[in-house]
Amino acid sequence: MLRQAATTFTVETRGRGLVEFTRPVAAWVAQQGVATGLLTLFVRHTSASLLIQENADADVRADLERFFARLVADGDRIFRHRAEGADDMPAHVRAALTAVHLSIPVVARSLALGTWQGIYVWEHRLRPHRREVAVHLAGDIGAAS
Amino acid sequence: MLRQAATTFTVETRGRGLVEFTRPVAAWVAQQGVATGLLTLFVRHTSASLLIQENADADVRADLERFFARLVADGDRIFRHRAEGADDMPAHVRAALTAVHLSIPVVARSLALGTWQGIYVWEHRLRPHRREVAVHLAGDIGAAS
Amino acid sequence: MLRQAATTFTVETRGRGLVEFTRPVAAWVAQQGVATGLLTLFVRHTSASLLIQENADADVRADLERFFARLVADGDRIFRHRAEGADDMPAHVRAALTAVHLSIPVVARSLALGTWQGIYVWEHRLRPHRREVAVHLAGDIGAAS
Repeated sequence: MLRQAATTFTVETRGRGLVEFTRPVAAWVAQQGVATGLLTLFVRHTSASLLIQENADADVRADLERFFARLVADGDRIFRHRAEGADDMPAHVRAALTAVHLSIPVVARSLALGTWQGIYVWEHRLRPHRREVAVHLAGDIGAAS
Repeated sequence: MLRQAATTFTVETRGRGLVEFTRPVAAWVAQQGVATGLLTLFVRHTSASLLIQENADADVRADLERFFARLVADGDRIFRHRAEGADDMPAHVRAALTAVHLSIPVVARSLALGTWQGIYVWEHRLRPHRREVAVHLAGDIGAAS
Repeated sequence: MLRQAATTFTVETRGRGLVEFTRPVAAWVAQQGVATGLLTLFVRHTSASLLIQENADADVRADLERFFARLVADGDRIFRHRAEGADDMPAHVRAALTAVHLSIPVVARSLALGTWQGIYVWEHRLRPHRREVAVHLAGDIGAAS
């Protein structure tokens, strides 16, 4: 029978950039004793994203950051919303261009991530923030843990 | 026990721009009497998006619009698909760059939206359209309404 | 009662570009005998995406490809991650700008796709690849097939 579980993760960011949190997510899913199901993550902010991206070469994350910094420049004169700083409106645009939620199937007791896929919070503001991620899991929870 | 509910929202747009519909979505979820669950919205069009974005300062939406209008210019000579107007192919590109579906956990009888997060249909065509959003909710529906 | 089903699709790409796989997905959903539910697709790679896009005019797909090739240029000097080829880091950026998962409601025994919406794997690498898509379905499965 299908059941559900829910929790909230808090991810501390160190300013703009990617923070991986694949391990705590995988550990929580494993604790629920689910063999098959669907995990959904949702970031409760408009200036941070969730990203599935390569976790092998740190250059990939640095290149992603450089690309987005050029695409959505801090202090771009096109932006009128500047009260919260030159990095605030670019953060909203970056959030719109990426994802605020992820849904990942659980297969054979594991997240169906590919070999090189990690789960990241992408902080778009320059300063560190505490980001909340709402988490929902549906599946055959507790069936055989 | 996990149950599900489904409906369709129709959102009338006034041409290019964001139309918030957080309230009717939240009201429908509340009517289902769900304490914990997962809401999914899916826009049934290829020239409109769904967006979670700041609902406080209208400048944010205007800035988003300006940024995307510059990034994906109407009438760009790169586009060959022009039969439906100079804004049609840009609308498809904007849809590809943003989201056509959203999944939001329901926690403690409410959508797990952050303080400043609103749910929007983003109309990418210049003229008004009637946009259909398919809605699915799974959760402990009707358990204690 | 809500049940679930899961499978994996393998999509062979022919190098950079869109490969539609709406039919096999719709056929698999139909086989599960579900009237109402939620389908989720998740691509297990960091250099390919899933896309809902117009399936009528092939020019739309060609224009999308041209736009993204200009936006994220192969061999851009900004990228340091080049070990796997000039198209590899652009592929990661394109994946970040688009979607790695899709959730589509099932309504009245069919995917709630709009008239012109097709489901695509978007290959971002220049060479052909075999892409795995993890699939999850929750709904009144087998209730009345």
